[in-house]
Amino acid sequence: MRALQLNGSLEYRNDVSIPEADQEQALLKVIRAGICNTDLELVQGYMNFSGILGHEFVAEVEDGPPEWIGKRVVGEINVADGECEFCLQGITSQCSNRLTLGIDRHDGAFSDYMVLQQQNLHVVPDNVADDAAVFVEPLAAALQVLEAVHVLPRDRVIVVGIGKLGALVAQVLRLTGADVIGLIRREKQARRLEKWGIAHAAREDLQDRSAPMVVDCTGTSDGFATSLDLVKPRGTIVLKSTYTGIPQADLTRIAVDEVRVIGSRCGPFDSALRLLSAGLVDVESLVEARYPIEQGIEAFEHAARKGAYKVLLDF
Amino acid sequence: MRALQLNGSLEYRNDVSIPEADQEQALLKVIRAGICNTDLELVQGYMNFSGILGHEFVAEVEDGPPEWIGKRVVGEINVADGECEFCLQGITSQCSNRLTLGIDRHDGAFSDYMVLQQQNLHVVPDNVADDAAVFVEPLAAALQVLEAVHVLPRDRVIVVGIGKLGALVAQVLRLTGADVIGLIRREKQARRLEKWGIAHAAREDLQDRSAPMVVDCTGTSDGFATSLDLVKPRGTIVLKSTYTGIPQADLTRIAVDEVRVIGSRCGPFDSALRLLSAGLVDVESLVEARYPIEQGIEAFEHAARKGAYKVLLDF
Repeated sequence: MRALQLNGSLEYRNDVSIPEADQEQALLKVIRAGICNTDLELVQGYMNFSGILGHEFVAEVEDGPPEWIGKRVVGEINVADGECEFCLQGITSQCSNRLTLGIDRHDGAFSDYMVLQQQNLHVVPDNVADDAAVFVEPLAAALQVLEAVHVLPRDRVIVVGIGKLGALVAQVLRLTGADVIGLIRREKQARRLEKWGIAHAAREDLQDRSAPMVVDCTGTSDGFATSLDLVKPRGTIVLKSTYTGIPQADLTRIAVDEVRVIGSRCGPFDSALRLLSAGLVDVESLVEARYPIEQGIEAFEHAARKGAYKVLLDF
Repeated sequence: MRALQLNGSLEYRNDVSIPEADQEQALLKVIRAGICNTDLELVQGYMNFSGILGHEFVAEVEDGPPEWIGKRVVGEINVADGECEFCLQGITSQCSNRLTLGIDRHDGAFSDYMVLQQQNLHVVPDNVADDAAVFVEPLAAALQVLEAVHVLPRDRVIVVGIGKLGALVAQVLRLTGADVIGLIRREKQARRLEKWGIAHAAREDLQDRSAPMVVDCTGTSDGFATSLDLVKPRGTIVLKSTYTGIPQADLTRIAVDEVRVIGSRCGPFDSALRLLSAGLVDVESLVEARYPIEQGIEAFEHAARKGAYKVLLDF
């Protein structure tokens, strides 16, 4: 089968064996997949991953329990052991022994076929298109902000970093009724937010220490410093990205201003599917380009361009 | 009057004018004062402070409203404007326009006389000795951990950094019934915790990701890294110190493990006085040395020794 494999460097191959599903897994035929910033970081060496990349996808069940076959599905990326302290609390995304699809010791979705635990699968409602379904994973991650902190309708929230993930975070926050402001650096970001009726501002238009809540979607030391400048004393910063290396961070400011920094990772797939099915979040306009899997290397180059939104892979 | 003044470098002087109290202030005659790590950092240039140092003290009211005169008092260090958004919420310690006693644009307590807002003063109960009263400010700061997070009786809490402040934090946490463990690096720290019946462990005896809560009292990048190693996914790290410069901090770990980092600063004086009056916290055994104010420079040198506990100044 065809696959995008990371093995020191990223390579496209058409001679990879089709994986076999075990008792707990299903064999999936991938329909479409999306390239995430984490994929770009993995190519740079993050997690020391080798294998087939990809964790944003929609697929059809090819083999598995009869009731699943032919269903269109998306899948949670954490392959949990079901036995650890976190799994027993129902927090499988924090399983102490987890493998992670296309990220950590588990082949991913950038291939014609893939296997995944049946318990990770969610059926996609008919009214959610393939393109939209590819966004379920990052949209769920955006929703995890609302699991991690209680955003009040009267809150003011600044989203720093209106990229692929920040655009989803801003849309999800908008649904709370809060006063959401996207911190923009490019005209393209401004136009995108305007389309959704979300306010935006450049850094120089935002007062220091003016926001009770800031979501940092930048994954950069500078972005975190900006978030610390914008958050009010006793306010909250939600971290929504991974950062390159060990960045500098003004811990003294956190202590003195009594700021709360809350990490946030994978989120609820069912909730993301409900919002997409109800048409409450626009993801399809985030698609910037699509490439056939054979042109996966070019697709990655496109996705790595500054300010690029979602690049899809077709199978 | 005699004073320890910071003016680029620290100097002892005996020719400083006695300050005059305005309508809202009281004139205080200092009885005893304590040297805090923040004082050591101020001498190194933190906050660019110049003036009389000192914010841990007990004093007698020399002049002010008649009902205050002769009373033995301690004082909160934040001189608030009473008008800003935080003051109106009752959070005067985060006043947007605050001055801070001996730290930021307000002369401190290392002098024969000092002035402070009447509303900052708290009368010391007769059964709290002068030595103990000097600890009200740092003990209140330790109590702020319990204001910032809800520590449950069945929680396990690791205190990283059993220095002057960490020793108070560990004692305050012990009162919650939680399983408190002090991370020790020196035999002296172990003996101190044993005296209070608080468990201790060296780093190699503590499992990674084993604590739902960690309090970092180190003020170092290494201490924060250790705290991140020890905290469980979805656990909480409370920051209880200021850090030198802008340290490195593994923000990716915070995001991926969904850790909560909570800053914490000044705390409730009344609560600290109640605990001292009830004999529930031992502070006097933390006194390592005392110097007359004339030997203030030597006192600072002593306080700066690695592992030193509290050094007091007598007037």
